[in-house]
Amino acid sequence: MLDLVGIFVFAISGALAGVHTRLDVVGMAVLAFFTAVGGGILRDVFLGVQPAALHDAGYVLVPLLASAVVFFWHPVVERGMPSILIFDAAGLGLFCATGTEKALLFGLSPLHAIFLGVVTAVGGGVLRDMLSGRRPTLLYDRQLYAVPALLGATVLAGLFEFGVRGPFAVLSAAVLAFSFRFLAMRRGWRAPLARGVTDSS
Amino acid sequence: MLDLVGIFVFAISGALAGVHTRLDVVGMAVLAFFTAVGGGILRDVFLGVQPAALHDAGYVLVPLLASAVVFFWHPVVERGMPSILIFDAAGLGLFCATGTEKALLFGLSPLHAIFLGVVTAVGGGVLRDMLSGRRPTLLYDRQLYAVPALLGATVLAGLFEFGVRGPFAVLSAAVLAFSFRFLAMRRGWRAPLARGVTDSS
Amino acid sequence: MLDLVGIFVFAISGALAGVHTRLDVVGMAVLAFFTAVGGGILRDVFLGVQPAALHDAGYVLVPLLASAVVFFWHPVVERGMPSILIFDAAGLGLFCATGTEKALLFGLSPLHAIFLGVVTAVGGGVLRDMLSGRRPTLLYDRQLYAVPALLGATVLAGLFEFGVRGPFAVLSAAVLAFSFRFLAMRRGWRAPLARGVTDSS
Repeated sequence: MLDLVGIFVFAISGALAGVHTRLDVVGMAVLAFFTAVGGGILRDVFLGVQPAALHDAGYVLVPLLASAVVFFWHPVVERGMPSILIFDAAGLGLFCATGTEKALLFGLSPLHAIFLGVVTAVGGGVLRDMLSGRRPTLLYDRQLYAVPALLGATVLAGLFEFGVRGPFAVLSAAVLAFSFRFLAMRRGWRAPLARGVTDSS
Repeated sequence: MLDLVGIFVFAISGALAGVHTRLDVVGMAVLAFFTAVGGGILRDVFLGVQPAALHDAGYVLVPLLASAVVFFWHPVVERGMPSILIFDAAGLGLFCATGTEKALLFGLSPLHAIFLGVVTAVGGGVLRDMLSGRRPTLLYDRQLYAVPALLGATVLAGLFEFGVRGPFAVLSAAVLAFSFRFLAMRRGWRAPLARGVTDSS
Repeated sequence: MLDLVGIFVFAISGALAGVHTRLDVVGMAVLAFFTAVGGGILRDVFLGVQPAALHDAGYVLVPLLASAVVFFWHPVVERGMPSILIFDAAGLGLFCATGTEKALLFGLSPLHAIFLGVVTAVGGGVLRDMLSGRRPTLLYDRQLYAVPALLGATVLAGLFEFGVRGPFAVLSAAVLAFSFRFLAMRRGWRAPLARGVTDSS
């Protein structure tokens, strides 16, 4: 259930990116889908299993629903963007925790499970940007986006190693990543550039 | 056999895109290959099976042949472009039907099989554009390209559910998708933009 | 061991590309990782097996180390670039040979194993460029980069077919590909453009 909420929010952000780059309705639906489930698909492809998105109708229908909402009411949705960023942070927290957990359950080492947790959380946004013909925001905009996901994934892996598993562990890690992301947005925290490099923006 | 014709036509379109963006002969061959078999590779990766392209020499040799043809005679090929668009529409019809059928045979639900059928048909073109450093045409140019593939995939899945399988079902769905694509080109049908968004071109 | 050296050198080139496009530290690490192990990941995804990068800590830690080196000392690293190009050529030679060998051991035909060997060697660089929002250098810059990989992969496959296997075969093919790449750089050999197309640079 929570999963589908995260997918809906990510799909809204993908469909809005489609409106901003003037894509047609097909482009909007493609962006919405890959933004929402692209991270999970990457994780599952790396794990060598059939993507979960191919076994659950919701993973296809929810992005289509989000596309329809944005198609008809995008000005309304944009006015609600500040709250959407909150939901996006919630999706980020949730996905880094569930992604890491799934990888650990498949027997990966904590190091690699953390890696796949971050991929699950941020992969969809990277695909969204690449499909829109833009440089992935994640790589240069200096907002802390991957870092909260890294924190959440690390906490989940730590709890898992100490035997704390199941919904409680996932929720703790997700809340932590969410809070960090929220604070980073509020306070305008930035990722550092290499020495001597000045900001591109 | 039909499959290799579709691959040849898609490879020609990839190699021509390479000439237009002044790629060297290596770039042309890479574009030709991924345009032609990229959709099928994506489908098979999503299904979690080794891509068919890795088991059949034709899937590698036919794109190389198409690259050689374009390398030596691209002005001739370009004069024949209108008829190539017809062949491209035929490839689109064929691939959406065979892609959907393969996914159904692997036990996927009709919804997800239709999704993979469309991916098979349009995935190569999207990879071609991303490798050329362009925004994927599919997402914004408002031509009906994914929509005919969606129609063909849906018809194939419907026939399959009602027990109509095999070459007859594939050919029916392919002809329908081809005819729709052909009409859409002839009549200049366009995919809609979100409300209030004006055309980018 | 040799493998990790190749990964380190490729990761350095990815992290430097990140500095040049003014990415933040997260972007640098992402580029370094996918440049270094992206080709192997593509190969393993095509083979339908879990990427080797998910089973070995070095595949994650070495790119992180390379990112840290570039983050703190990139001016020093850039002054050493000419020698880095030598190491890059060594990585290219090594990866085309090991990639082809792995594909042959998985039972692929020589044709497809050669294809995967080239993908292993050049895939990381293509991912690096696509993630940086650039057209892949491989496709248009006319340097002979894929061609030496093709030569090395073909030699490895030939030796393998004649029963010459193991480290000796890998090293022979790698040295040959390296030497060809080195000569191509020194002499400025170029890949041809299609007839009538003039250089884009």
